[in-house]
Amino acid sequence: MADEAAFQFLHNEVIQYIYKSAESGETENGRHIAKLENMGFRVGQGLIERLTKDTARFKDELDIMKFVCKDFWTCVFKKQIDNLRTNHQGIYVLQDNKFRLLSQLSAGKQYLEHAPKYLSFSCGLVRGALSSLGVKSIVTAEVSIMPACKTSREVLIKKSN
Amino acid sequence: MADEAAFQFLHNEVIQYIYKSAESGETENGRHIAKLENMGFRVGQGLIERLTKDTARFKDELDIMKFVCKDFWTCVFKKQIDNLRTNHQGIYVLQDNKFRLLSQLSAGKQYLEHAPKYLSFSCGLVRGALSSLGVKSIVTAEVSIMPACKTSREVLIKKSN
Repeated sequence: MADEAAFQFLHNEVIQYIYKSAESGETENGRHIAKLENMGFRVGQGLIERLTKDTARFKDELDIMKFVCKDFWTCVFKKQIDNLRTNHQGIYVLQDNKFRLLSQLSAGKQYLEHAPKYLSFSCGLVRGALSSLGVKSIVTAEVSIMPACKTSREVLIKKSN
Repeated sequence: MADEAAFQFLHNEVIQYIYKSAESGETENGRHIAKLENMGFRVGQGLIERLTKDTARFKDELDIMKFVCKDFWTCVFKKQIDNLRTNHQGIYVLQDNKFRLLSQLSAGKQYLEHAPKYLSFSCGLVRGALSSLGVKSIVTAEVSIMPACKTSREVLIKKSN
Protein backbone atom coordinates (compact mmCIF):
# COMPACT_ATOMS: atom_id res chain seq x y z
CA MET A 1 0.00 0.00 0.00
CA ALA A 2 2.43 2.61 1.22
CA ASP A 3 5.30 0.77 -0.42
CA GLU A 4 5.05 2.39 -3.80
CA ALA A 5 3.78 5.65 -2.35
CA ALA A 6 7.18 7.36 -2.48
CA PHE A 7 7.27 6.84 -6.22
CA GLN A 8 3.70 8.06 -6.62
CA PHE A 9 4.21 11.21 -4.60
CA LEU A 10 7.48 12.00 -6.37
CA HIS A 11 5.75 11.48 -9.71
CA ASN A 12 3.06 13.97 -8.72
CA GLU A 13 5.66 16.50 -7.61
CA VAL A 14 7.49 16.21 -10.91
CA ILE A 15 4.31 16.90 -12.83
CA GLN A 16 3.54 19.90 -10.70
CA TYR A 17 7.08 21.18 -10.95
CA ILE A 18 7.14 20.96 -14.71
CA TYR A 19 3.72 22.55 -15.08
CA LYS A 20 4.42 25.30 -12.59
CA SER A 21 7.66 26.40 -14.20
CA ALA A 22 5.97 28.01 -17.20
CA GLU A 23 2.70 29.17 -18.70
CA SER A 24 0.24 26.50 -19.66
CA GLY A 25 -0.75 27.50 -23.15
CA GLU A 26 -1.60 24.92 -25.77
CA THR A 27 1.95 24.57 -27.15
CA GLU A 28 3.44 24.71 -23.66
CA ASN A 29 1.24 21.84 -22.61
CA GLY A 30 2.61 19.77 -25.46
CA ARG A 31 6.17 20.56 -24.41
CA HIS A 32 5.50 19.57 -20.81
CA ILE A 33 4.00 16.29 -21.95
CA ALA A 34 7.10 15.67 -24.06
CA LYS A 35 9.39 16.39 -21.12
CA LEU A 36 7.52 13.95 -18.91
CA GLU A 37 7.55 11.39 -21.66
CA ASN A 38 11.32 11.76 -22.06
CA MET A 39 11.86 11.40 -18.36
CA GLY A 40 9.83 8.21 -18.42
CA PHE A 41 11.81 6.99 -21.41
CA ARG A 42 15.11 7.21 -19.54
CA VAL A 43 13.69 5.69 -16.37
CA GLY A 44 12.26 2.84 -18.46
CA GLN A 45 15.64 2.24 -20.10
CA GLY A 46 17.40 2.09 -16.75
CA LEU A 47 14.83 -0.17 -15.17
CA ILE A 48 14.66 -2.70 -17.97
CA GLU A 49 18.44 -2.97 -18.02
CA ARG A 50 18.44 -3.83 -14.36
CA LEU A 51 15.48 -6.20 -14.62
CA THR A 52 16.76 -8.17 -17.59
CA LYS A 53 20.36 -8.59 -16.55
CA ASP A 54 19.83 -12.22 -15.55
CA THR A 55 17.00 -13.23 -17.84
CA ALA A 56 17.28 -15.50 -20.83
CA ARG A 57 17.12 -14.02 -24.32
CA PHE A 58 13.59 -13.26 -25.46
CA LYS A 59 12.06 -15.50 -28.11
CA ASP A 60 10.11 -12.84 -29.95
CA GLU A 61 8.24 -9.57 -29.64
CA LEU A 62 5.30 -11.19 -27.85
CA ASP A 63 7.71 -12.64 -25.32
CA ILE A 64 9.07 -9.16 -24.70
CA MET A 65 5.59 -7.71 -24.30
CA LYS A 66 4.73 -10.40 -21.75
CA PHE A 67 7.83 -9.51 -19.77
CA VAL A 68 6.82 -5.85 -19.83
CA CYS A 69 3.30 -6.74 -18.66
CA LYS A 70 4.50 -8.93 -15.82
CA ASP A 71 7.94 -8.17 -14.44
CA PHE A 72 8.38 -4.61 -15.60
CA TRP A 73 4.89 -3.44 -14.66
CA THR A 74 5.12 -5.17 -11.28
CA CYS A 75 8.44 -3.51 -10.58
CA VAL A 76 7.02 -0.05 -11.16
CA PHE A 77 3.37 -0.38 -10.20
CA LYS A 78 3.36 -3.42 -7.87
CA LYS A 79 0.80 -5.21 -9.99
CA GLN A 80 0.65 -6.90 -13.37
CA ILE A 81 -1.10 -5.64 -16.44
CA ASP A 82 -4.60 -7.08 -16.34
CA ASN A 83 -5.05 -7.79 -20.00
CA LEU A 84 -2.77 -8.01 -23.01
CA ARG A 85 -4.25 -8.18 -26.48
CA THR A 86 -2.55 -8.15 -29.85
CA ASN A 87 -3.49 -8.34 -33.49
CA HIS A 88 -0.22 -10.24 -34.15
CA GLN A 89 0.77 -7.51 -36.57
CA GLY A 90 2.62 -5.26 -34.22
CA ILE A 91 -0.19 -3.69 -32.26
CA TYR A 92 -0.42 -4.50 -28.59
CA VAL A 93 -3.01 -3.28 -26.13
CA LEU A 94 -2.06 -3.40 -22.47
CA GLN A 95 -4.88 -2.83 -20.07
CA ASP A 96 -4.50 -1.91 -16.40
CA ASN A 97 -7.82 -1.78 -14.60
CA LYS A 98 -6.46 -0.05 -11.54
CA PHE A 99 -3.66 2.18 -12.71
CA ARG A 100 -1.78 3.49 -9.69
CA LEU A 101 -0.84 6.88 -11.02
CA LEU A 102 -4.47 7.71 -11.70
CA SER A 103 -6.02 6.12 -8.64
CA GLN A 104 -5.49 9.32 -6.64
CA LEU A 105 -7.67 11.30 -9.03
CA SER A 106 -11.31 11.57 -8.21
CA ALA A 107 -13.54 9.26 -10.23
CA GLY A 108 -15.94 10.65 -12.80
CA LYS A 109 -15.34 12.76 -15.85
CA GLN A 110 -14.46 15.94 -14.01
CA TYR A 111 -10.70 15.51 -14.17
CA LEU A 112 -10.55 13.57 -17.40
CA GLU A 113 -8.83 16.48 -19.14
CA HIS A 114 -5.92 16.27 -16.69
CA ALA A 115 -5.33 12.59 -17.36
CA PRO A 116 -2.70 13.10 -20.11
CA LYS A 117 -0.29 14.69 -17.62
CA TYR A 118 -0.52 11.59 -15.49
CA LEU A 119 -0.04 9.20 -18.36
CA SER A 120 2.80 10.61 -20.42
CA PHE A 121 5.50 9.53 -17.98
CA SER A 122 4.20 5.97 -18.12
CA CYS A 123 4.01 6.00 -21.90
CA GLY A 124 7.66 6.99 -21.87
CA LEU A 125 8.44 4.22 -19.40
CA VAL A 126 7.10 1.57 -21.76
CA ARG A 127 8.69 3.14 -24.82
CA GLY A 128 12.07 3.28 -23.05
CA ALA A 129 11.84 -0.31 -21.87
CA LEU A 130 10.89 -1.55 -25.34
CA SER A 131 13.58 0.57 -26.96
CA SER A 132 16.28 -1.00 -24.79
CA LEU A 133 15.02 -4.41 -25.83
CA GLY A 134 15.34 -3.47 -29.49
CA VAL A 135 11.68 -2.76 -30.17
CA LYS A 136 10.98 0.67 -31.63
CA SER A 137 7.49 1.72 -30.72
CA ILE A 138 4.89 4.41 -30.47
CA VAL A 139 3.14 4.25 -27.14
CA THR A 140 -0.12 6.02 -26.50
CA ALA A 141 -2.51 5.81 -23.62
CA GLU A 142 -6.26 5.97 -23.34
CA VAL A 143 -8.39 6.38 -20.27
CA SER A 144 -12.03 5.55 -20.07
CA ILE A 145 -13.13 6.49 -16.62
CA MET A 146 -15.86 4.31 -15.25
CA PRO A 147 -19.02 5.56 -13.63
CA ALA A 148 -18.36 6.75 -10.11
CA CYS A 149 -19.75 3.59 -8.53
CA LYS A 150 -16.93 1.57 -10.04
CA THR A 151 -13.53 2.74 -8.95
CA SER A 152 -11.47 0.84 -11.44
CA ARG A 153 -9.96 2.80 -14.29
CA GLU A 154 -8.59 1.44 -17.49
CA VAL A 155 -5.36 2.43 -19.08
CA LEU A 156 -4.74 1.13 -22.51
CA ILE A 157 -1.26 1.30 -23.86
CA LYS A 158 -0.94 0.67 -27.53
CA LYS A 159 2.30 -0.15 -29.25
CA SER A 160 2.36 0.08 -32.99
CA ASN A 161 5.06 0.05 -35.65
CA MET B 1 16.72 -4.94 -5.35
CA ALA B 2 14.85 -3.71 -8.39
CA ASP B 3 11.84 -2.94 -6.26
CA GLU B 4 12.83 0.55 -5.27
CA ALA B 5 14.65 1.16 -8.53
CA ALA B 6 11.79 3.08 -10.10
CA PHE B 7 11.99 5.63 -7.31
CA GLN B 8 15.78 5.84 -7.60
CA PHE B 9 15.78 6.35 -11.33
CA LEU B 10 13.01 8.93 -11.15
CA HIS B 11 14.92 10.74 -8.42
CA ASN B 12 18.00 10.88 -10.64
CA GLU B 13 15.97 12.17 -13.56
CA VAL B 14 14.49 14.93 -11.44
CA ILE B 15 17.95 16.07 -10.38
CA GLN B 16 19.16 16.07 -13.95
CA TYR B 17 16.07 17.88 -15.14
CA ILE B 18 16.38 20.62 -12.57
CA TYR B 19 20.10 21.07 -13.15
CA LYS B 20 19.78 20.98 -16.92
CA SER B 21 17.11 23.65 -17.09
CA ALA B 22 19.46 26.48 -16.19
CA GLU B 23 23.05 27.55 -15.73
CA SER B 24 24.90 26.10 -12.78
CA GLY B 25 26.48 29.13 -11.18
CA GLU B 26 26.96 29.35 -7.45
CA THR B 27 23.60 31.02 -6.71
CA GLU B 28 21.82 28.84 -9.25
CA ASN B 29 23.14 25.77 -7.50
CA GLY B 30 21.61 26.98 -4.26
CA ARG B 31 18.27 27.51 -5.94
CA HIS B 32 18.30 24.03 -7.42
CA ILE B 33 19.10 22.55 -4.03
CA ALA B 34 16.19 24.51 -2.55
CA LYS B 35 13.82 23.24 -5.26
CA LEU B 36 14.81 19.65 -4.61
CA GLU B 37 14.47 20.18 -0.89
CA ASN B 38 10.97 21.61 -1.34
CA MET B 39 9.96 18.70 -3.51
CA GLY B 40 11.18 16.34 -0.82
CA PHE B 41 9.29 18.31 1.79
CA ARG B 42 5.96 17.82 0.06
CA VAL B 43 6.63 14.15 -0.65
CA GLY B 44 7.56 13.67 3.01
CA GLN B 45 4.35 15.34 4.12
CA GLY B 46 2.24 13.12 1.90
CA LEU B 47 4.02 9.95 2.89
CA ILE B 48 3.89 10.49 6.63
CA GLU B 49 0.20 11.25 6.44
CA ARG B 50 -0.40 7.97 4.75
CA LEU B 51 1.92 6.02 7.04
CA THR B 52 0.53 7.36 10.29
CA LYS B 53 -3.14 7.17 9.51
CA ASP B 54 -3.60 4.08 11.70
CA THR B 55 -0.85 4.53 14.27
CA ALA B 56 -1.34 5.52 17.88
CA ARG B 57 -0.46 9.03 19.01
CA PHE B 58 3.27 9.52 19.57
CA LYS B 59 4.50 9.83 23.13
CA ASP B 60 7.22 12.38 22.53
CA GLU B 61 9.76 13.69 20.05
CA LEU B 62 12.01 10.67 20.45
CA ASP B 63 9.09 8.42 19.66
CA ILE B 64 8.51 10.40 16.47
CA MET B 65 12.17 10.13 15.50
CA LYS B 66 12.09 6.38 16.01
CA PHE B 67 9.09 6.14 13.71
CA VAL B 68 10.92 8.16 11.08
CA CYS B 69 13.98 5.91 11.42
CA LYS B 70 12.01 2.70 11.13
CA ASP B 71 8.72 2.93 9.28
CA PHE B 72 9.26 6.07 7.27
CA TRP B 73 12.80 5.24 6.17
CA THR B 74 11.80 1.68 5.30
CA CYS B 75 8.91 2.94 3.21
CA VAL B 76 11.16 5.13 1.11
CA PHE B 77 14.51 3.36 1.14
CA LYS B 78 13.55 -0.26 1.95
CA LYS B 79 15.84 -0.34 4.97
CA GLN B 80 15.94 1.17 8.43
CA ILE B 81 18.27 3.87 9.65
CA ASP B 82 21.32 2.08 11.07
CA ASN B 83 21.96 4.32 14.00
CA LEU B 84 20.03 7.02 15.84
CA ARG B 85 21.78 9.19 18.36
CA THR B 86 20.52 12.17 20.30
CA ASN B 87 21.78 14.61 22.90
CA HIS B 88 18.25 14.72 24.37
CA GLN B 89 18.21 18.46 23.76
CA GLY B 90 16.71 18.47 20.33
CA ILE B 91 19.58 17.28 18.18
CA TYR B 92 19.20 13.95 16.48
CA VAL B 93 21.73 12.20 14.28
CA LEU B 94 20.38 9.58 11.91
CA GLN B 95 22.98 7.43 10.24
CA ASP B 96 22.43 5.31 7.18
CA ASN B 97 25.47 3.23 6.28
CA LYS B 98 24.22 2.29 2.87
CA PHE B 99 22.17 5.17 1.61
CA ARG B 100 20.32 4.12 -1.53
CA LEU B 101 20.36 7.40 -3.37
CA LEU B 102 24.14 7.56 -3.16
CA SER B 103 24.91 3.91 -3.73
CA GLN B 104 24.96 4.44 -7.49
CA LEU B 105 27.76 6.95 -7.21
CA SER B 106 31.28 5.65 -7.53
CA ALA B 107 33.12 5.27 -4.23
CA GLY B 108 36.04 7.51 -3.36
CA LYS B 109 36.27 11.24 -3.08
CA GLN B 110 35.96 11.94 -6.79
CA TYR B 111 32.24 12.71 -6.77
CA LEU B 112 31.99 14.04 -3.24
CA GLU B 113 31.21 17.51 -4.55
CA HIS B 114 28.10 16.20 -6.29
CA ALA B 115 26.72 14.62 -3.11
CA PRO B 116 24.61 17.65 -2.04
CA LYS B 117 22.40 17.28 -5.12
CA TYR B 118 21.65 13.73 -4.12
CA LEU B 119 20.94 14.57 -0.49
CA SER B 120 18.76 17.65 -0.56
CA PHE B 121 15.63 15.78 -1.62
CA SER B 122 16.04 13.42 1.32
CA CYS B 123 16.65 16.27 3.76
CA GLY B 124 13.36 17.71 2.57
CA LEU B 125 11.68 14.33 3.00
CA VAL B 126 12.61 14.20 6.66
CA ARG B 127 11.78 17.85 7.25
CA GLY B 128 8.36 17.38 5.64
CA ALA B 129 7.62 14.26 7.64
CA LEU B 130 8.61 15.92 10.91
CA SER B 131 6.69 19.05 10.04
CA SER B 132 3.48 17.09 9.52
CA LEU B 133 4.02 15.52 12.93
CA GLY B 134 4.31 18.94 14.51
CA VAL B 135 8.10 19.04 14.83
CA LYS B 136 9.74 22.06 13.24
CA SER B 137 13.27 21.19 12.24
CA ILE B 138 16.38 22.02 10.32
CA VAL B 139 17.66 18.98 8.52
CA THR B 140 21.16 18.82 7.13
CA ALA B 141 23.11 15.92 5.70
CA GLU B 142 26.75 14.94 5.84
CA VAL B 143 28.57 12.37 3.80
CA SER B 144 31.88 10.86 4.74
CA ILE B 145 32.79 8.56 1.94
CA MET B 146 34.79 5.57 3.03
CA PRO B 147 37.98 4.39 1.39
CA ALA B 148 37.23 2.63 -1.85
CA CYS B 149 37.64 -0.81 -0.30
CA LYS B 150 34.58 -0.24 1.87
CA THR B 151 31.45 0.43 -0.06
CA SER B 152 29.27 1.69 2.72
CA ARG B 153 28.56 5.39 2.89
CA GLU B 154 27.27 7.30 5.78
CA VAL B 155 24.51 9.80 5.74
CA LEU B 156 24.00 11.78 8.86
CA ILE B 157 20.81 13.72 9.23
CA LYS B 158 20.73 16.19 12.01
CA LYS B 159 17.61 17.74 13.37
CA SER B 160 18.04 20.77 15.54
CA ASN B 161 15.69 23.38 16.93
